[in-house]
Amino acid sequence: MAFNILVAHGGGPTAVINSSLQGLIEAARTSRCVDRIYAARYGAEGILSDDLIDLTDVPAEVIRRLHHTPASAIGSCRRKLTESDYPAVLECFRKHDIRAFFYNGGNDSMDTCNKINQLAIRENLDIRVIGIPKTIDNDLNLTDHSPGFGSAARYAGLNAAELALDASALPIHVVVLELMGRNAGWITAAGGLASRLTDCEQIIYLPELLVDPDKMLGDIEAAYAKGAGLLVTVSEGLCGLDGKPLADSGLVDGFGHSVPGGTAEYISSQIMSRLNIRSRAEKPGLIGRTSMAYVSEIDREEAYQVGCAAMEYALAGETGCMVAIRAERSSDYRSSLFQAPLAAVANVEKKFPLEWIEDGTHIADAFFDYALPLMGGEFPQYCNLRTSGGIL
Amino acid sequence: MAFNILVAHGGGPTAVINSSLQGLIEAARTSRCVDRIYAARYGAEGILSDDLIDLTDVPAEVIRRLHHTPASAIGSCRRKLTESDYPAVLECFRKHDIRAFFYNGGNDSMDTCNKINQLAIRENLDIRVIGIPKTIDNDLNLTDHSPGFGSAARYAGLNAAELALDASALPIHVVVLELMGRNAGWITAAGGLASRLTDCEQIIYLPELLVDPDKMLGDIEAAYAKGAGLLVTVSEGLCGLDGKPLADSGLVDGFGHSVPGGTAEYISSQIMSRLNIRSRAEKPGLIGRTSMAYVSEIDREEAYQVGCAAMEYALAGETGCMVAIRAERSSDYRSSLFQAPLAAVANVEKKFPLEWIEDGTHIADAFFDYALPLMGGEFPQYCNLRTSGGIL
Repeated sequence: MAFNILVAHGGGPTAVINSSLQGLIEAARTSRCVDRIYAARYGAEGILSDDLIDLTDVPAEVIRRLHHTPASAIGSCRRKLTESDYPAVLECFRKHDIRAFFYNGGNDSMDTCNKINQLAIRENLDIRVIGIPKTIDNDLNLTDHSPGFGSAARYAGLNAAELALDASALPIHVVVLELMGRNAGWITAAGGLASRLTDCEQIIYLPELLVDPDKMLGDIEAAYAKGAGLLVTVSEGLCGLDGKPLADSGLVDGFGHSVPGGTAEYISSQIMSRLNIRSRAEKPGLIGRTSMAYVSEIDREEAYQVGCAAMEYALAGETGCMVAIRAERSSDYRSSLFQAPLAAVANVEKKFPLEWIEDGTHIADAFFDYALPLMGGEFPQYCNLRTSGGIL
Repeated sequence: MAFNILVAHGGGPTAVINSSLQGLIEAARTSRCVDRIYAARYGAEGILSDDLIDLTDVPAEVIRRLHHTPASAIGSCRRKLTESDYPAVLECFRKHDIRAFFYNGGNDSMDTCNKINQLAIRENLDIRVIGIPKTIDNDLNLTDHSPGFGSAARYAGLNAAELALDASALPIHVVVLELMGRNAGWITAAGGLASRLTDCEQIIYLPELLVDPDKMLGDIEAAYAKGAGLLVTVSEGLCGLDGKPLADSGLVDGFGHSVPGGTAEYISSQIMSRLNIRSRAEKPGLIGRTSMAYVSEIDREEAYQVGCAAMEYALAGETGCMVAIRAERSSDYRSSLFQAPLAAVANVEKKFPLEWIEDGTHIADAFFDYALPLMGGEFPQYCNLRTSGGIL
């Protein structure tokens, strides 16, 4: 009997989602139980249009390149599957004799994955449905953290630190850095690494707290007046006291969420026009999820392992679950994997703990106790010769 | 007789300007002829206010951290020295018995350096005046290239490639990437590496050519319609047919140059409003000159060597020159250093060769023959499983 498998990516990619794909493929090849390995081209779109990629015979050395390839090598989409799509999904599964379906994604994708699992049960299909976690936003429930977050956080932290060094070496303007995260401040909080690695002043605004623009400008003016440079780090989804985004692109994505835009640019223009202080807004945007040079090695390894585990769970007959990560931080960081029920993951958003925000604009040590191991552990010691001793 | 030296940084820092500082300091320490090593805190400002940092006894292990520290460890400024500042400059040189002055900077700084040299000759000062080249913009005359460019180009090229992979894996929007370079397209051209490493469509606009916005939108619409994603790479200083920046921040910098702003954001909004296609604008901005993870090792090594050479030239009694780079590309890349007269470097802008722009929107191979060795040589081979074979 053929045991064919199908994997699909949902939503925005990360720097390490291809490592999960690599882990899945390599585990499938090792198992000797798997016949054909299919991937949906461009995620749900590929399932609905029966556009599958047969990966069974792709050479091992090509698969190994997934390790350093960002974005999704099989393609992804933001299309949310609805009830009317189910016949086409079933048709695809039946036509290709799919016995295990893997959906690699974030909150919305796990909701879809859960619905497909319920559909499979109702239709009495002989298929295992397994979720593989992936989101830079780190907002998936039950898992300690999500693959992709550690690398996005390392990107945010080190780039904020490097920018802070520039802002304090040439303190002619307030530098405003916009980081990804619509509703959750996990990535922006990681930008707080700049305050631990440099002596530049830094003020951080997470989307969890509504912002009073007047107070914000007052804080910026006071911090810049200290004279040693200032980095203002903000989340793209920052909202004013009315609960509306400070800057709104006017767009809505495929899952129906509104897309914020230009938050740093907006704050920067306010600094210039209302405080008469020069300012620059920097927005790496998607680069924060594509940059391979800032990948966290621990994140990449865990992404690989959740891919392997998904395959092993399916071979063991498990279904209706997402691979989740359990972490120990007592001495050295260690993690292990377990099965979280899809129904308990779907559409539950893990919130950034408000007690990790200090005085509204700084990040507590507790966050870094949690996040530093995920961000890859080792960080540089910089040199500042303007201050005595030269060591930061 | 005391032989004291003074080094100052001018203008915006690069990822490797601290390596030039390290080279200078380590060469000075090796020489045994140098007594005190001073640095001007915040560049010209430090000279004028007699605010020097004494680096003579800073431990060697602190100096070695300059290797991986971005921005300027001694501080920089954008103040241009004028005639009325000369008495204070002379006072600083005399008070601290400075016998060699090193100014590390770009075009404007080399102009200042040249004027200080003429001043020293007029005043009969026993001082050597040496320029150390530094600019991400690569527009210094006589030198094959400028330290700092290779790393900024590596950043531009690899980040454009990584973003192109994202744009083609999830082709739901046109991604517009803004790169640094007000008047010269050297860095933006390096973004063309994306077309060599990925199969994503890419259109590039350099500031050397005026842009017809209607034609630009037509080109974008046609390229996006091919369906495999589109990356539009633009220089921050892009101008319309009227010769004015497409987007203008309204700011003027300390050297009197107007500061462009939001070019990608502007183009992105035009794509959405006039073409009704989704678009995202990304602008890493200063990150393009601070990111240590994308440093080109060749660039860093050359930056170190020009610092060493500056010290050696001064000890040999040379003055009125800038350290310049001669490069050989016949088989393997090799470079050597020579002295370029400051008077011939000052205020002459090296232009990007127009024949390296093909069809207005693509970069010729000749540019990459020139730039690839400077960008650090080795580049990843990515994996795209959506296309047959999986290899890009």
